[in-house]
Amino acid sequence: MQASTQNLLQKYPHRVRYEHPLNERVRVYLRLEFLLKQIEQSMSLEDPWQYQVLLRGIFELLELFEQGQIKMDLIKDLERHKIKLNKWSGLNNVNQDMLKDMLEQLGHISETLISMPKLDLEFKRDRLLSNVRQRMSIPGGCCSFDVPMLHRWLSKEQVEKQHSSYAWWEALSPVNEAITLLLRLTRESGQFTSQAASAGFYQDETENAEMLRLEIPTEFDIYPVISGNKNRFAIRFTPFDEENSVPDLIEFRLAVCN
Amino acid sequence: MQASTQNLLQKYPHRVRYEHPLNERVRVYLRLEFLLKQIEQSMSLEDPWQYQVLLRGIFELLELFEQGQIKMDLIKDLERHKIKLNKWSGLNNVNQDMLKDMLEQLGHISETLISMPKLDLEFKRDRLLSNVRQRMSIPGGCCSFDVPMLHRWLSKEQVEKQHSSYAWWEALSPVNEAITLLLRLTRESGQFTSQAASAGFYQDETENAEMLRLEIPTEFDIYPVISGNKNRFAIRFTPFDEENSVPDLIEFRLAVCN
Repeated sequence: MQASTQNLLQKYPHRVRYEHPLNERVRVYLRLEFLLKQIEQSMSLEDPWQYQVLLRGIFELLELFEQGQIKMDLIKDLERHKIKLNKWSGLNNVNQDMLKDMLEQLGHISETLISMPKLDLEFKRDRLLSNVRQRMSIPGGCCSFDVPMLHRWLSKEQVEKQHSSYAWWEALSPVNEAITLLLRLTRESGQFTSQAASAGFYQDETENAEMLRLEIPTEFDIYPVISGNKNRFAIRFTPFDEENSVPDLIEFRLAVCN
Repeated sequence: MQASTQNLLQKYPHRVRYEHPLNERVRVYLRLEFLLKQIEQSMSLEDPWQYQVLLRGIFELLELFEQGQIKMDLIKDLERHKIKLNKWSGLNNVNQDMLKDMLEQLGHISETLISMPKLDLEFKRDRLLSNVRQRMSIPGGCCSFDVPMLHRWLSKEQVEKQHSSYAWWEALSPVNEAITLLLRLTRESGQFTSQAASAGFYQDETENAEMLRLEIPTEFDIYPVISGNKNRFAIRFTPFDEENSVPDLIEFRLAVCN
């Protein structure tokens, strides 16, 4: 059911955004983006517990890297976008300056990734990180007696700790640039439209979709449980408080990206 | 080798404190104390990533509770201290007001613990916590598509989130009171003395020791690697930067608690 976009934006100025991957590649990209944000936003180490957010972010990111050929996948994906965009060169209805700029960015990021040292080896060489990583899976394993080296590091001057955390971030920056650009291209491929779900359920068919983006007005105290693949998807809107029933009509915004 | 305490305090005003358990009970207490601090200091949820520190703290604490009979152990330990302190009642060289006060505290905390609902059941009933706990072991598993319910919760007003986090803390407060008191009694049983280690090594014999406390001047960029049991212990001082050598003489403060 399609609703008027302008009306929905005016009626519900506060909305929560959700994104859902429809294939494994985008699923990994969204996880990497989430972890990269977590690392970037905690590397200043201003709050005494931020080191946990930072270090866990790094370790989970390394785990994703150890699970798959992420670097190669990113390079291939950048190449795929380059080929796709190259086809648009010379077309009248395409802004050729923007196209040239985007192609340059894709080429530059590919090159940086190719020349980047192997991420897990880089981080494994770091004595502090290897020391902590072994212990972080134990409940309460960051106690001073478990990792006295971490305890010593935490007692150091802010600027000295930031020297390490900024260097870790620096090592991750080629991956961050690639993920940011690739997800930007995916996100920009979809246009938000206003939709409405009745009885808390919405489904649709699509073609080669990669990601769904939803905006749900905060007036509805619900969250979406989504299942789907590139050809079809279903959204079940679930009350946050299980004692509440789902509203008869839920207006929301949806973008299908591919 | 014993050094002069007054000299050391004046010479090295900045010191890093380390604590090391010499038995399993104190090891668990120190981990619980660490996690309780982590929860308490992040429950205000002011920083956007603090929820991770808070939730991980709660889940790791629950894991410790699921591993052992912690509640029973705490009650038994409080009882043990009560019996020990009761023997001092009426002795001339003991402050009887302080003793009475401490015995009352021990009794009160025991009673609160006994009447406390089963912690893991309490938390398992919480839909949000169970929802997140399943996902938190996945790298990047706190993404909005993994736990949309958490994403909805995070978008709520600060005061509403704090309502939940303060309730979680409230449920933990009997454990916090018991741990705080028991570790205070352990810590107060030891007196700091000044010591010196030559060639980065120190060892000693002791009797029924439960915990070591160390204070190492920040001038030495080292951390202690400790092994030991109730009868003997050894401390190997390790340079933080492996390219540095260990200083010939390391002055530090040590308290053996039992």
